[in-house]
Amino acid sequence: MANKAPDIAAVKDYLMDLQDRICLGLEGIAESDRFEEDTWSHDSGGGGRTRVLAGDGVIEKGGVNFSHVMGDKLPAAATQMRPELAGKSFQAMGVSLVIHPRNPYVPTSHANVRLLVAGMETEDPVWWFGGGFDMTPYYGFEEDARHWHKTAVAACRPLGEDAYPRYKKWCDDYFFLKHRNEQRGIGGIFFDDLNEPDFDTSFAFMQSVGDHYLPAFLPILKRRQGLKHGKVERDWQLYRRGRYVEFNLVIDRGTLFGLQSGGRTESILMSLPPLASWKYCFTPEPGSEEERLLSEFLVVREWL
Amino acid sequence: MANKAPDIAAVKDYLMDLQDRICLGLEGIAESDRFEEDTWSHDSGGGGRTRVLAGDGVIEKGGVNFSHVMGDKLPAAATQMRPELAGKSFQAMGVSLVIHPRNPYVPTSHANVRLLVAGMETEDPVWWFGGGFDMTPYYGFEEDARHWHKTAVAACRPLGEDAYPRYKKWCDDYFFLKHRNEQRGIGGIFFDDLNEPDFDTSFAFMQSVGDHYLPAFLPILKRRQGLKHGKVERDWQLYRRGRYVEFNLVIDRGTLFGLQSGGRTESILMSLPPLASWKYCFTPEPGSEEERLLSEFLVVREWL
Repeated sequence: MANKAPDIAAVKDYLMDLQDRICLGLEGIAESDRFEEDTWSHDSGGGGRTRVLAGDGVIEKGGVNFSHVMGDKLPAAATQMRPELAGKSFQAMGVSLVIHPRNPYVPTSHANVRLLVAGMETEDPVWWFGGGFDMTPYYGFEEDARHWHKTAVAACRPLGEDAYPRYKKWCDDYFFLKHRNEQRGIGGIFFDDLNEPDFDTSFAFMQSVGDHYLPAFLPILKRRQGLKHGKVERDWQLYRRGRYVEFNLVIDRGTLFGLQSGGRTESILMSLPPLASWKYCFTPEPGSEEERLLSEFLVVREWL
Repeated sequence: MANKAPDIAAVKDYLMDLQDRICLGLEGIAESDRFEEDTWSHDSGGGGRTRVLAGDGVIEKGGVNFSHVMGDKLPAAATQMRPELAGKSFQAMGVSLVIHPRNPYVPTSHANVRLLVAGMETEDPVWWFGGGFDMTPYYGFEEDARHWHKTAVAACRPLGEDAYPRYKKWCDDYFFLKHRNEQRGIGGIFFDDLNEPDFDTSFAFMQSVGDHYLPAFLPILKRRQGLKHGKVERDWQLYRRGRYVEFNLVIDRGTLFGLQSGGRTESILMSLPPLASWKYCFTPEPGSEEERLLSEFLVVREWL
């Protein structure tokens, strides 16, 4: 465990600034895409700044949240890997975002960076960083997948050469729907429980991940958002969004943590798509682009 | 515990016949509403008969499933109330159905009857029945709610006068979205772990519940399915269906049991609506019919 006291204020400043920069970057694509802000406070201390966009523009629904919540008892979903911390006081702060574009050729993207500190009242508080970003396309473009993962490599650089392969694998393992035997998307990077080698290095890495989200996503959003599409592509997007709902509600540890810790439901479930469909035993035509997404993109694969 | 060996074959016969009768009854409303059947077998033994309807008729999506699955190890979701049975061999059989009508004035309805037997290889197998039916309206009609609950009272008669209030309360307690502080619908009846006073009485009660689903739902479906509606009502229905998804994926023990026990995902998630939406912090207009649903119907209330 680290011996330097965690500089929580510096992390908070970074996170709030990151939220500003990401919203600004996303608003730069279409004039009608404007985030609205809701600030809220949490019963047990802390609060958040939820920013949501839902309009007629390029982004059908998007949310970029900052939150900083405190609690007396760390909930179970946060302590699977550190059972000795169950029941301790905690602080959690982070930026979490999900962008659901309207055009089915643009992927849904998700990013999250966070710090958790437990036992601040003790002499030896425990802290760790977590986060990452991952992408969920509805149609496969190798160029986009390569760009996304190349940017993930760049994001990992502050932690050394082995960070990308480690966190890429963690992402593949995490964003997996066991009950469907499917990857959620093409992955990216995912890390958690990071407290090595020290606070400053871990924090610098978290910043690098946060800073690389826009460079990873914006070029893809820009080049695909104007592509023509029809009912077939829209229906497929809505159907695949159903998987997104399944992942977030059945599997995602962050969502469970939020709901278990009495978090703000509307902010937590802001990640859900604006519209999603379910069809019984639907299978795309062999040889179709839809089928190619499943067989060539939603599988564990090296993209570089 | 009961001392008569459970007559599994008789229960199975009843359940398969019930599935036939319910499908036939629902198909009687509109000529275009026709169920399609899928039979499947389960890796660890048993299988099922899934019947799904998804067309242009009165029912937008509906599923009426029979399944009979066996397993070596009873999954956690089934043993919360009987931890001593964790890991025992089991058989589960049941009929489970969800009907999502197209017209927003018709409620979604759900019914389920089931038998679980654990430790069949031992001298003293443990068995219990469970089930019930509940209704989730998008617009409130007191007449419908009263009819639904009156039929529930009739269904409970074989078990005595106190069965309805007991199982009505259980239903209200169960179909509750804690993270929304909302009832899922207007309730109905819900029972589980029933093995008293004996197998025959419990089985007779389960049959009564199964037999009363159609008389409870068909009159409501018939009288509301032709009501005129527009985009406002449709949007509200899609939005409220989002809550249905949240309940089934986050809370429902049956769904978790199915997914944990390696059940057939397409049959389990057949309960999800054909189309659902999520909007950030959406609140209906004060005084509207939509607001009246929340304040007067989706609350714990005595209907008789």
